[in-house]
Amino acid sequence: MNDKTRPGNFFEDFRLGQRIVHATPRTVTEGDVALYIALYGTRFAINSSTEFAQALGFPRAPIHDLLAFHIVFGKTVADISLNAIANLGYASGRFGAPLYPGDTVSSSSTVIGLKQNKDGKTGVVYVRSIGVNQHDEMVVDYCRWVMVRKKNLAAPAPETVVPQLPDGVPASGLSVPAALDIRRYDRALAGSEHLWEDYEPGERIDHVDGMTVEESDHMLATRLYQNTAKVHFNQHAEKDGRFGRRIIYGGHVISLARSLSFNGLANAFKLVAINGGRHVAPTFAGDTIYAWTQVLERIDLDRADLGALRLRTVATKDRACAGFPWKDEAGNYDPAIVLDFDYSVLMPRR
Amino acid sequence: MNDKTRPGNFFEDFRLGQRIVHATPRTVTEGDVALYIALYGTRFAINSSTEFAQALGFPRAPIHDLLAFHIVFGKTVADISLNAIANLGYASGRFGAPLYPGDTVSSSSTVIGLKQNKDGKTGVVYVRSIGVNQHDEMVVDYCRWVMVRKKNLAAPAPETVVPQLPDGVPASGLSVPAALDIRRYDRALAGSEHLWEDYEPGERIDHVDGMTVEESDHMLATRLYQNTAKVHFNQHAEKDGRFGRRIIYGGHVISLARSLSFNGLANAFKLVAINGGRHVAPTFAGDTIYAWTQVLERIDLDRADLGALRLRTVATKDRACAGFPWKDEAGNYDPAIVLDFDYSVLMPRR
Amino acid sequence: MNDKTRPGNFFEDFRLGQRIVHATPRTVTEGDVALYIALYGTRFAINSSTEFAQALGFPRAPIHDLLAFHIVFGKTVADISLNAIANLGYASGRFGAPLYPGDTVSSSSTVIGLKQNKDGKTGVVYVRSIGVNQHDEMVVDYCRWVMVRKKNLAAPAPETVVPQLPDGVPASGLSVPAALDIRRYDRALAGSEHLWEDYEPGERIDHVDGMTVEESDHMLATRLYQNTAKVHFNQHAEKDGRFGRRIIYGGHVISLARSLSFNGLANAFKLVAINGGRHVAPTFAGDTIYAWTQVLERIDLDRADLGALRLRTVATKDRACAGFPWKDEAGNYDPAIVLDFDYSVLMPRR
Repeated sequence: MNDKTRPGNFFEDFRLGQRIVHATPRTVTEGDVALYIALYGTRFAINSSTEFAQALGFPRAPIHDLLAFHIVFGKTVADISLNAIANLGYASGRFGAPLYPGDTVSSSSTVIGLKQNKDGKTGVVYVRSIGVNQHDEMVVDYCRWVMVRKKNLAAPAPETVVPQLPDGVPASGLSVPAALDIRRYDRALAGSEHLWEDYEPGERIDHVDGMTVEESDHMLATRLYQNTAKVHFNQHAEKDGRFGRRIIYGGHVISLARSLSFNGLANAFKLVAINGGRHVAPTFAGDTIYAWTQVLERIDLDRADLGALRLRTVATKDRACAGFPWKDEAGNYDPAIVLDFDYSVLMPRR
Repeated sequence: MNDKTRPGNFFEDFRLGQRIVHATPRTVTEGDVALYIALYGTRFAINSSTEFAQALGFPRAPIHDLLAFHIVFGKTVADISLNAIANLGYASGRFGAPLYPGDTVSSSSTVIGLKQNKDGKTGVVYVRSIGVNQHDEMVVDYCRWVMVRKKNLAAPAPETVVPQLPDGVPASGLSVPAALDIRRYDRALAGSEHLWEDYEPGERIDHVDGMTVEESDHMLATRLYQNTAKVHFNQHAEKDGRFGRRIIYGGHVISLARSLSFNGLANAFKLVAINGGRHVAPTFAGDTIYAWTQVLERIDLDRADLGALRLRTVATKDRACAGFPWKDEAGNYDPAIVLDFDYSVLMPRR
Repeated sequence: MNDKTRPGNFFEDFRLGQRIVHATPRTVTEGDVALYIALYGTRFAINSSTEFAQALGFPRAPIHDLLAFHIVFGKTVADISLNAIANLGYASGRFGAPLYPGDTVSSSSTVIGLKQNKDGKTGVVYVRSIGVNQHDEMVVDYCRWVMVRKKNLAAPAPETVVPQLPDGVPASGLSVPAALDIRRYDRALAGSEHLWEDYEPGERIDHVDGMTVEESDHMLATRLYQNTAKVHFNQHAEKDGRFGRRIIYGGHVISLARSLSFNGLANAFKLVAINGGRHVAPTFAGDTIYAWTQVLERIDLDRADLGALRLRTVATKDRACAGFPWKDEAGNYDPAIVLDFDYSVLMPRR
């Protein structure tokens, strides 16, 4: 291989504490927002309307939180997960400064843990990745861990360091935009009468609708995020791979589930945390995604106008969620489940 | 079903005179315009070029009239037609204030007619829907009627009220933008030498080209409009439905036909009315859309620079339109026809 | 056929020296840029980030050079190549003023050569096409030649004129934006440490990755460029055509190859010339595109900060390029090759 080409990092290339500046800063535009709507059909009013956002104190409509997340995540792939076998999990994700069209986001990651697997051929890399805007304000900050191949099997195993990752982001870690003023929140335009007090911990909501994914859809999305993971794009190689076909970027399923969740959670207008998340099974073109949500916790933010909800949204493929498919007695996920996503949102109070 | 989820209205939920404010106001952007061009390949210069539009007195290029229509229509679906069996027709549609990138459009509907069907299981709902911009100026105003399921078959039939809908929008109802100045209209850049006087009532034009629709195309479009009708998106459910597959949003076919009509009607630069319209048959992914147009009427607008044409554009699937497929002697549409669309456009005079 | 419809020009319709103003000027927007990223996943930082571009002296991020090219090219199709059988080649292409969102590009062509084929049924038309911005500054200027059908076989053959087209654009013909200041070029953000001096003439780079093309992808792209060539869009007609299916716009493959070339050429931040190019074989939906590049020449621009490279990028379908597939001893292209593209780029010096 010519030395001009970047092969991505293998397990033995990572060092504890290593900081990696990812290539290709990205100015987000109204074009990205239009594509995001076209890809997911999302209907949250705050991201759709200048006037609705301004009534809440924002200078204009902020871009969708998950679009910001995907753009930050996409930049990390070439350095962190190009040789990954599996994206194992997320933790401790926080959303900070809202991102607006015209802002530029840059990404970097720090290696916070390393653990070689017993087979000696792979290892788990833990990274904390941060996206900042052009004012160096944190936009997204999250941890993930991935299983990465070794290239040189003779390379010595690093000292095992597994970071202590919290089970969730505490109320004190949630960032509420300073300008946010909920008094002029219009529930009719937002699409629901149900507010923070109406959601009971334990309550489950079937989001009813399903969305079938096509190859073009997920590839357009993943390229928009400048995510270069090979498995999403190359049918010629994947026909001989594990599944015989392209695998859909897990984040695409997160965005589909969030968009479907509008029907039942229309006032959950902003993500503030990703407490944890797991891509339980791969999704392929032709699959239809459904979702349901359980309210895990009602978080008091110590203000009268606004609270947070901690939610678990579960996405399935080719199975409607009226029965809330979950785990069996042995703790195994229902085979239709593809995503188990634990996150926190803001919602107006009465 | 959890009460947080909105099931859409059933026939018995509508009341004569009821006004419904639809959720999710929408700021239209240059991103939407780029997607609209990518979805239909439309070439009308007024919507494509700032300078061309400014030469006609517009502050900048207005967005495509049908893009405005689809965005307004899309918002009505969750309240009006989520439980619809068929979209039966349009009438009395008028285009008002041009919509520019940055403008926000909000939609509302009023129930203007109700008629329960004899089977007792369905009924026809007539609504007038209006989209306004952030200055409360009318952008689109149209009537449509849909056949909607009853959920509670025991619900009493409402009094039958069928509105008198005009056969078309008269010249006096056509809104010509005040700023419009046709003197610097450049026919070479517009793509045709043919002006208002050249179109004879009765004349038929085959638009020659065909466009094949893919699943991704129509789903991207329909999600862009935030139209949530289930039949367009969910193959898992539709495989057991009436047609065994997803049905393409009828408005997607209208936009395809309008775009194809550039070849023959390049100077028909602005829609001003939808006199009537019928989705004659469903369209599916893989179908190739062709179109032809008949000039119905040359409308004198009492000004020297500009006239209107009333047009019928017929779209077919998998059949070229050189032979102008239409109705048989019994009045039945040719089986290839999917759309019969009666509308009015502005065109420069000599 | 109704005279309102434009059938495109046939070979006998072209005259030496004829100048054709193409319809539909096009204002380029951030929406186009977002779609371009979504279609190709391109990662060159200069086109992705306002701040990165401003650090190099640009007022903002210029749009991708090939996006400008495709938009100019697309407008020529209705007049030049609607009745073409084959797009035979490019030469003498130069990129001038950078194009920014908000700029409007208009296209015109001049016939610079004509040569009827011996069969009397077709001929080769040579055109020089120019795209200019709203200040009448040259954006793209290139020659191409296409084989076009005759409609009237009895039409006399024109005098044969085959223009002398140069083998490449000389250093003196390369346009370096005046504002360009390379001192603050950030290689980490650009994605590579390799600069102009590191590329040796003769050196070959395998770009490793592959990208599978779907029908929706290439049709969205080609419509975005308002390119109306029938063969890309109409499966109903093409099922009976030469290949039984739609043919992908050759420019789509050029953009895919350029995007793949980021892995190995991340600092080749701007195209300045198209020296020549040939679509060796057609590409169809389902094909996976790979690419490799040979450095043809290192061009000294007589300045310390910046040089140019002349490159040949070869794209294949369904064949990885580790072995650098090229021509056999008889001079025939490897059957996997679809594109042979000879162009020049700018790159920072040490």
